[in-house]
Amino acid sequence: MTIHRARWAVGLISGTSMDGIDAALVRIEGLGDCPKVWLHAFRTLPYPPAIRNRLLGVASGSATSTQEISMLNFALGQLFADAMLAVCRQGRVSPGKLDVIGSHGQTVFHQGPSTGSVSKRRSHLSQASTLQLGEAAVIAERAGVPVVADFRAADMAAGGQGAPLVPLVDYLLLRHEELGSVALNIGGIANVTVIPAGAGSQSVFGFDTGPGNMLMDGLVRHFTHARKTYDEGGKWAAQGKPLKPVLDRILRLPFFRRPPPKSAGREQFGSEFLARYFLSQRKAEPADLIRTAAELSARSIADALRRFVFPQAKIHRLIVSGGGARNGFLMGRIRDLLPELDLHLSDNYGFPADAKEAIAFALLADRTLQGLPGNLPAVTGARRAVILGKISRP
Amino acid sequence: MTIHRARWAVGLISGTSMDGIDAALVRIEGLGDCPKVWLHAFRTLPYPPAIRNRLLGVASGSATSTQEISMLNFALGQLFADAMLAVCRQGRVSPGKLDVIGSHGQTVFHQGPSTGSVSKRRSHLSQASTLQLGEAAVIAERAGVPVVADFRAADMAAGGQGAPLVPLVDYLLLRHEELGSVALNIGGIANVTVIPAGAGSQSVFGFDTGPGNMLMDGLVRHFTHARKTYDEGGKWAAQGKPLKPVLDRILRLPFFRRPPPKSAGREQFGSEFLARYFLSQRKAEPADLIRTAAELSARSIADALRRFVFPQAKIHRLIVSGGGARNGFLMGRIRDLLPELDLHLSDNYGFPADAKEAIAFALLADRTLQGLPGNLPAVTGARRAVILGKISRP
Repeated sequence: MTIHRARWAVGLISGTSMDGIDAALVRIEGLGDCPKVWLHAFRTLPYPPAIRNRLLGVASGSATSTQEISMLNFALGQLFADAMLAVCRQGRVSPGKLDVIGSHGQTVFHQGPSTGSVSKRRSHLSQASTLQLGEAAVIAERAGVPVVADFRAADMAAGGQGAPLVPLVDYLLLRHEELGSVALNIGGIANVTVIPAGAGSQSVFGFDTGPGNMLMDGLVRHFTHARKTYDEGGKWAAQGKPLKPVLDRILRLPFFRRPPPKSAGREQFGSEFLARYFLSQRKAEPADLIRTAAELSARSIADALRRFVFPQAKIHRLIVSGGGARNGFLMGRIRDLLPELDLHLSDNYGFPADAKEAIAFALLADRTLQGLPGNLPAVTGARRAVILGKISRP
Repeated sequence: MTIHRARWAVGLISGTSMDGIDAALVRIEGLGDCPKVWLHAFRTLPYPPAIRNRLLGVASGSATSTQEISMLNFALGQLFADAMLAVCRQGRVSPGKLDVIGSHGQTVFHQGPSTGSVSKRRSHLSQASTLQLGEAAVIAERAGVPVVADFRAADMAAGGQGAPLVPLVDYLLLRHEELGSVALNIGGIANVTVIPAGAGSQSVFGFDTGPGNMLMDGLVRHFTHARKTYDEGGKWAAQGKPLKPVLDRILRLPFFRRPPPKSAGREQFGSEFLARYFLSQRKAEPADLIRTAAELSARSIADALRRFVFPQAKIHRLIVSGGGARNGFLMGRIRDLLPELDLHLSDNYGFPADAKEAIAFALLADRTLQGLPGNLPAVTGARRAVILGKISRP
């Protein structure tokens, strides 16, 4: 393989919020642990509403069939291919010029290994597992170039949580000799990568802190009957006041106290959680509930840093990406709760906050073709560093 | 890659009958279209009954969840890895010595593209798709060698039926300069590969003829309350007489008259079909129903050869593999209906009838690592020959 030269790659992902497919077209130079990456074009393709509704349904546990899962997998393959072609068109790079496509797919189930004694049981169906949809063979056929997909399974097969995977990319792109950094991604779920000053990859760690936008988005969708899908700029939350009893009850849950590594998803903080802790407050004002969800995200992020990060490493800066970085109210609350840190948007580092995860999977796919591992065992809890993903050749 | 030397490979498959996992350990020599293959060891690992019952359930359309599909995928990965380790132990070859593992996995849904006008509709959820379970990353982790899996998706992404895939292997191993051959595999579904005398790969064709053992097995399971899973040697069928009205009604179905390429599965001939055409005959004797199912398999095979094969090529021999080759009664009926052909078991060609499909996926995986295509477009209907499967590296 001629991978020494600069190369084009596309990264594709739809996150837990299931709004649509993020596609990043990037230029990569350099090998091994010294890549340089430039974002060349970025597009988000919203899901057709019918597809999105079924995805939200099956991901929150509603009854389905192997026929539906199989059809959704192939239909999503076509939609991910559409997004890939759209970002190539936007960047005026022919798909055939790509060296690799990294497609995360759409997670519809994810359960990491339990950290307690349960994991010792030798039962076939109590194991950790993960399931992403978006058939890679369909993308490879339409692009005519290799596709790497299914990034989480190998880490999980090696005993890891299968998540988060972006930390290695944070490390490669954000490490600094003198400044300790935390990369915070606020998607449906919020996660952090901790990169101590002058760190080697083995001292990087990271974990999911809990809900990011998932609960806020769910409430907005509920109260607008799905006419809106998120609280733009946090304006709605800004009009409410936090409901302290709800907040206290949630923050006492074991998830928040459990030390890393840990990962979360729609299984923990999806519609069931929303119904139980928020929608059950029938007399509460919508604004107060949305404000409470925003406060929960900010508080659980700040608490996680104080509990699990600051005792381990001197941190100077907090670099925020993901859709939540566009929520001014949420960003303000995080700044209030962590006044000792310099708060930046990942935009300042050349990566628009929305594009970071898609960029990450382009870079992880490039590593897989190089035969390099893509997980950080200290982050995921895996027994060893492993090559991520499965390669489909056109 | 050093693939010029002789190499060890394992092939793994569980067929539509879902009895358990066939594992073949083979030695391969030669490159490209001239491989030589020796079967070194063969094992079948029955599924744990609880897993088998759930697989039969979800494959015949019963309600499930993404959680169950995800967990079954990882649980089957472990069981396929168990089968791989068992056959390595039996053959006294350390798993680390393998060059590749080809794992077909367990099909739980398969629907080829419709050949009529429906395929022109541009609806996201009316597309052809296929779904195999048995997470390859789990197998790769436990073996420490590359695994190729998910063989059917690439052919389907190129417009093919995704099946049958064994014909290329039949061609590579059974072609003869002067004798025309039909390779007949009788698994849950029966399929044929037609290899005219002196044929190049482009004149090979093949298709599914309809039910193989699926209906007989389903009836035996029904009448014994699952104490038996198949009619050993066809003894039960031999005691009955065929129900002509049932047989005639089924043989008039469009599937049997449709010209190849065509593929079938549990979707067409599973529990729903069994209930509709067989179990609805409440006054019929079990032996008569089983005899009718056997007759249907034999007749649909013989009819398919007379309709779609003999007009195309002079055929001298019929080489039978799959579990159905062990059903003496069924073999006798096929011999009666096709007296002009020499009937052989694939055992005579060095491959025990039960092991052929597992051997085939070992060889197809070896081709994928060589970057060679594994489908025959004339057989599957694909637009082009494509590299099959996804590669997971340990």
